[in-house]
Amino acid sequence: MKTLRIGLIGAGFMGKAHSLAYAALPMYFWPPPAMPIRSVIADVNAELAAEAAVRYGYERSTGDWRRVVDDPNIDVIDIATPNDLHAEIAVAAATVGKHIICEKPLARTGEEARGMYEAGCAAGIVNMVAFNYRRTPAVALAKRYIDEGAIGQVLNFRGTYLQDWSADPESPLSWRFQKSIAGSGALGDIGTHVLDLARYLVGEVASVNSMLRTYIPKRPTGAGGLDRLGAGRLAGTPWGIVDVDDEVSTLLRFGNGAVGSIEATRNAYGRNNFLTFELHGTEGSIVFNYERRDELQVCFADDPDDRRGFRTVHTGPAHPYGDALWPIPALGIGYGDTKIIEANDLFRAIVDGTPVSPDFGDGYQVALISDAIVASAESDAWVDVPMLDRSRAAAHAR
Amino acid sequence: MKTLRIGLIGAGFMGKAHSLAYAALPMYFWPPPAMPIRSVIADVNAELAAEAAVRYGYERSTGDWRRVVDDPNIDVIDIATPNDLHAEIAVAAATVGKHIICEKPLARTGEEARGMYEAGCAAGIVNMVAFNYRRTPAVALAKRYIDEGAIGQVLNFRGTYLQDWSADPESPLSWRFQKSIAGSGALGDIGTHVLDLARYLVGEVASVNSMLRTYIPKRPTGAGGLDRLGAGRLAGTPWGIVDVDDEVSTLLRFGNGAVGSIEATRNAYGRNNFLTFELHGTEGSIVFNYERRDELQVCFADDPDDRRGFRTVHTGPAHPYGDALWPIPALGIGYGDTKIIEANDLFRAIVDGTPVSPDFGDGYQVALISDAIVASAESDAWVDVPMLDRSRAAAHAR
Amino acid sequence: MKTLRIGLIGAGFMGKAHSLAYAALPMYFWPPPAMPIRSVIADVNAELAAEAAVRYGYERSTGDWRRVVDDPNIDVIDIATPNDLHAEIAVAAATVGKHIICEKPLARTGEEARGMYEAGCAAGIVNMVAFNYRRTPAVALAKRYIDEGAIGQVLNFRGTYLQDWSADPESPLSWRFQKSIAGSGALGDIGTHVLDLARYLVGEVASVNSMLRTYIPKRPTGAGGLDRLGAGRLAGTPWGIVDVDDEVSTLLRFGNGAVGSIEATRNAYGRNNFLTFELHGTEGSIVFNYERRDELQVCFADDPDDRRGFRTVHTGPAHPYGDALWPIPALGIGYGDTKIIEANDLFRAIVDGTPVSPDFGDGYQVALISDAIVASAESDAWVDVPMLDRSRAAAHAR
Amino acid sequence: MKTLRIGLIGAGFMGKAHSLAYAALPMYFWPPPAMPIRSVIADVNAELAAEAAVRYGYERSTGDWRRVVDDPNIDVIDIATPNDLHAEIAVAAATVGKHIICEKPLARTGEEARGMYEAGCAAGIVNMVAFNYRRTPAVALAKRYIDEGAIGQVLNFRGTYLQDWSADPESPLSWRFQKSIAGSGALGDIGTHVLDLARYLVGEVASVNSMLRTYIPKRPTGAGGLDRLGAGRLAGTPWGIVDVDDEVSTLLRFGNGAVGSIEATRNAYGRNNFLTFELHGTEGSIVFNYERRDELQVCFADDPDDRRGFRTVHTGPAHPYGDALWPIPALGIGYGDTKIIEANDLFRAIVDGTPVSPDFGDGYQVALISDAIVASAESDAWVDVPMLDRSRAAAHAR
Repeated sequence: MKTLRIGLIGAGFMGKAHSLAYAALPMYFWPPPAMPIRSVIADVNAELAAEAAVRYGYERSTGDWRRVVDDPNIDVIDIATPNDLHAEIAVAAATVGKHIICEKPLARTGEEARGMYEAGCAAGIVNMVAFNYRRTPAVALAKRYIDEGAIGQVLNFRGTYLQDWSADPESPLSWRFQKSIAGSGALGDIGTHVLDLARYLVGEVASVNSMLRTYIPKRPTGAGGLDRLGAGRLAGTPWGIVDVDDEVSTLLRFGNGAVGSIEATRNAYGRNNFLTFELHGTEGSIVFNYERRDELQVCFADDPDDRRGFRTVHTGPAHPYGDALWPIPALGIGYGDTKIIEANDLFRAIVDGTPVSPDFGDGYQVALISDAIVASAESDAWVDVPMLDRSRAAAHAR
Repeated sequence: MKTLRIGLIGAGFMGKAHSLAYAALPMYFWPPPAMPIRSVIADVNAELAAEAAVRYGYERSTGDWRRVVDDPNIDVIDIATPNDLHAEIAVAAATVGKHIICEKPLARTGEEARGMYEAGCAAGIVNMVAFNYRRTPAVALAKRYIDEGAIGQVLNFRGTYLQDWSADPESPLSWRFQKSIAGSGALGDIGTHVLDLARYLVGEVASVNSMLRTYIPKRPTGAGGLDRLGAGRLAGTPWGIVDVDDEVSTLLRFGNGAVGSIEATRNAYGRNNFLTFELHGTEGSIVFNYERRDELQVCFADDPDDRRGFRTVHTGPAHPYGDALWPIPALGIGYGDTKIIEANDLFRAIVDGTPVSPDFGDGYQVALISDAIVASAESDAWVDVPMLDRSRAAAHAR
Repeated sequence: MKTLRIGLIGAGFMGKAHSLAYAALPMYFWPPPAMPIRSVIADVNAELAAEAAVRYGYERSTGDWRRVVDDPNIDVIDIATPNDLHAEIAVAAATVGKHIICEKPLARTGEEARGMYEAGCAAGIVNMVAFNYRRTPAVALAKRYIDEGAIGQVLNFRGTYLQDWSADPESPLSWRFQKSIAGSGALGDIGTHVLDLARYLVGEVASVNSMLRTYIPKRPTGAGGLDRLGAGRLAGTPWGIVDVDDEVSTLLRFGNGAVGSIEATRNAYGRNNFLTFELHGTEGSIVFNYERRDELQVCFADDPDDRRGFRTVHTGPAHPYGDALWPIPALGIGYGDTKIIEANDLFRAIVDGTPVSPDFGDGYQVALISDAIVASAESDAWVDVPMLDRSRAAAHAR
Repeated sequence: MKTLRIGLIGAGFMGKAHSLAYAALPMYFWPPPAMPIRSVIADVNAELAAEAAVRYGYERSTGDWRRVVDDPNIDVIDIATPNDLHAEIAVAAATVGKHIICEKPLARTGEEARGMYEAGCAAGIVNMVAFNYRRTPAVALAKRYIDEGAIGQVLNFRGTYLQDWSADPESPLSWRFQKSIAGSGALGDIGTHVLDLARYLVGEVASVNSMLRTYIPKRPTGAGGLDRLGAGRLAGTPWGIVDVDDEVSTLLRFGNGAVGSIEATRNAYGRNNFLTFELHGTEGSIVFNYERRDELQVCFADDPDDRRGFRTVHTGPAHPYGDALWPIPALGIGYGDTKIIEANDLFRAIVDGTPVSPDFGDGYQVALISDAIVASAESDAWVDVPMLDRSRAAAHAR
């Protein structure tokens, strides 16, 4: 059976999720496109990397990501580092012809993303950005309904991504609050997931009108607390200023005439992973809340008057990815499952040569929207989103 | 016991709701501020008015609203007509010193509302605008929590009002789709309810950035169908153009620094009276959905980590208006109940001389926001909302 | 227009609900079967009765219910007293040919109910027992679906009625905790509502297997507190023993082969008016929760695999009683609305001679089930429920 | 690092779930009690076993489970076969001193379970029964609240386990409908999960009063269809009779005085993995629904009147197993996660010598309750549940 050798860079929370995905891929998808070989794991902290190799089942480890990129035996580079390293690693990996999956947001800015996108095109490698929530079966089912025309033409979209882990003003200043590392705050960290869903389900975003807010302007460093996400990065960091957004709120105009709005914040007490969307179409509506991710709500206009209402569909064998998951709906999709599906789609693209989505072009386009949101918030005006010309990039790739 | 004699103008759906309120007021609130006497009901359709007098328990009826206003025995004018008559009736009633309650939106434009507001001030009468959803006990409880500081400083607000009764393109062109009568579409009809809640709970709206959309540009007239709201007005109307909005989506900046967004449409399949808001504060969050109006969800930041989460509080005797309603929470608040509470608050203001809220000033301010929303949508720019100077109006009243 | 003159006995919480119903009946149902005249209200406390006459809009009052029954001008006797007076009043009223509506439970025991039922049959008057939750539009919609065969043959039923107003051991010993007045505790007070729904939706209960529990064996008297239901009856009551059940739990076997279970308690913290049922049929399922009473959930087996799930139907104009209620689904059914519908159905039966349901026969049958539940709990065995022979009673009536 | 070598028997759906657990154990729990080595997988279908070895990451495979049991290198026998093989394998494994985890129900009857239990005791090995739903963090949180006294003394328990995969009368007669293989139907397959939760959360069940129903008396064999659970077993099976229950409904009396009821069926259209419970205590209530498994609802009696209601707690780092799972609540627990936790608890018991729960004694006790349920349903009477005397068994073990 064909194999693909993985080099994973970043041994934090995302490293865990991605490793689980490779371990489980053939268990879920059988036969798999290729058997994943967890070959090497890298982290700037070499000791952590060594431990992670045992924990996550890699053959070996290193403290230097360049050794992973340069290793001729590695087929796939998996970038699970903080955002500031994405571009450098990805460009290096593309240059030597590795396939790449990179955590979201693809980069800190559109400009940075452009470099990654162009490097990917030039190299002709498979490149993927890890907007894993697309892979939630209920989200994929929403996409199917829309593509089938089951709710007609989409008129509008309302999305949120609300968490509360940073609402406590005493929670530490992790890298996620530092622009130099993260690029932006709630916008890049979680808002980009909603932007990805908006593009996936509705279409291209043409222009935005936005507000950004920083609710907690400075945070203690070195402390423990609610943010366990980036805690390992805090050691020795000076007390610091939060220079990213705690909240983004934006209106959207889609290229196809639909409209929308998005709100994202990590300061919403009581919300934990409240990634939601509501779509109204000319023939129906769809509602989703990731906190209840086994369920998709859909209303069909052509149901009879006395029997119309949102149907709560529990995803299972009859729905997307159903064959690979559990045999009973609501047995339960977890976070890990979205990453397993993602890994399989990556592998399929590599092996079969089929397009993968979302790719670096999608990640770049989301970065362009993110830039436009920042520009809009700064200028208090609608800002058009430049549209990636994939044909030009394709030409560039020749 | 003191009495107040009511002259109700408009025998449609709202006439029913208001009449129920007067009949039930002393049943709920005992002793009542004054006993309501359902004295006269008027409708442009005199036959309908005569029938309504029997149905709704009025002593007599008329086809001419001016006779109600001019009747010296009437204490309170209740305006439940389509929007285009609000101003004329209200100004006439104020001029002769009647107390007034007027259905929302107060007027078709800010300019029209200004006249009503100034007439009310000049006359020194009690004037109220019927934003009844404020009276939902769960909404009043949200207000109490905020006023007590239980969720700290409000940071943001997200409100929606979604219905689906106009989603069918074959539903008839009632007055609610005609700018000359209604002033605007979803914005005035239901969006103003959310604006009222935003002001009530958060504070003044300083500026807006908005989109308006008309999804269904023309509608059949004279037909039956989903819109039973204004069906009686359709006879003889020519086939016509919808010249109002089907959807409004707006960002908000509040004067106190909070931000927000609102979406309202009557074209959202599966949503029926989906009037919702979500507020995040520095010390907690509040969530409300009128479709489940006996419930308020509140999350307090100071709950211990392992016991924190939204509390679903069912309103009852321990909550606002609890003594007047039913003795067990969730026994059930209905639409009528909000109007009964509203009528009582009006009566209390008249009898006790206490301020009433929302009054014409509030209705005027909401009209100013609505105008700003229209201006913003037309100009694609943030538009500041003029702020009513109540002291100046008070001076004008002397 | 025809009129029916009402004599209401009992000026407590239920007196309020019934009075509202008569005031609103023609407002909702137009033209009404007959115009209700609120003629006289009686209460053992004559002063309270006098005040109630003003509050609830009756022409006059009395401290002696016999004067109401004996009044030749009264058409309908409405019994809203504690349970111990139901039988005496009803039999007296039937004897003089009055139509009767009686609050639930019909009586304290089956034997007592039998007397009422037989008196009603003998007199040939319209008699109704006020199981108002049947009138919730969503419940009536469930009945319609079942009658249409939309969920096939009903296989099983699970019902609950959970409240928490008596969970506090310091809440007072109202009449609802005294067997001599109430007959039983949670069983009669709320359990009978679920039994009524079980019979309404599924069919006759053939046998039961039950447990009764008294969680709080004694309660303070004369105190204020959580129980506002019967507070007016407490004055002078000695400190006392709770001799009724706090919880009933029972299995059911229906005559048609279906099975079921019921749980009712007023000691369930966090539940307020949690009257729920879930029905599974050979072709679908139905779920209802009165706390969210605008919604009925229904799943149809013949929906396609990838679109099947519970539909949340918001009741409105397309559903039972829709013409009489509000023009938009989820505008909101309240507790009062169920009583308005109930009053209209009573009036229709009186005027049109159509059968009314639930009548005293239904109330009697529920009392027989209740007796069987008590007997089962005492004997730790299945107990068959005697089945009312309506033909025999009809013969008795000749 | 210490290792434990696994021999897994059964390559179906459960084999997948258990294999995932071993792969992920150290990824979640670090350092792990021991590193799991997926050593050998067995299935009666040797070809399937060989494929499964590759798919699930085992070093080798066999068609004969006895070779696994007899292999001196294997430390842990994992029994994931249909129920009829549990006892034979477990007794054989215990006899040679292997630690054992066995899927639920432990056995087809109490008698069969007794043999397993006694063999386990005699051998002194760690033995576990895979009631994995205990491991759902929200369930473990419920247990913690109860143990802390946060809801006082538990008064009653209502549990359900409803699915719909067997509601279609044309779904095939898998082994799950055959008494000779499964022992019972809904009772053993899913009802035992609820019994386990009842014992875990409330205490020992002293007696039961039960009904069993078979809704679909015969099923086609060899067909495809909704049941993908046991499809592999159908080949060549003759057309057959369903000789197990489709529904179980039972009352419970607990040894500590609490009462309860349970309903379980796989024929409830619209329910998928509706494993729920509701507990009322003297100081609060707890509600859980596995279909929304990231949430636990808890109501505390001592919350102030105006702020009391069910709290929806999303489990995360502050709750049981929080350190091992994902860093944000509601990021999402899936079915696999419950098995990972289970495997870790098994490993901990083996390595640390700590007791494991639920063990074969628990599985045996659940089998005794199941037997009592069957006996009750057959005799139409309350049946006492024999209580396992662990001290006697311990003595037997010496």
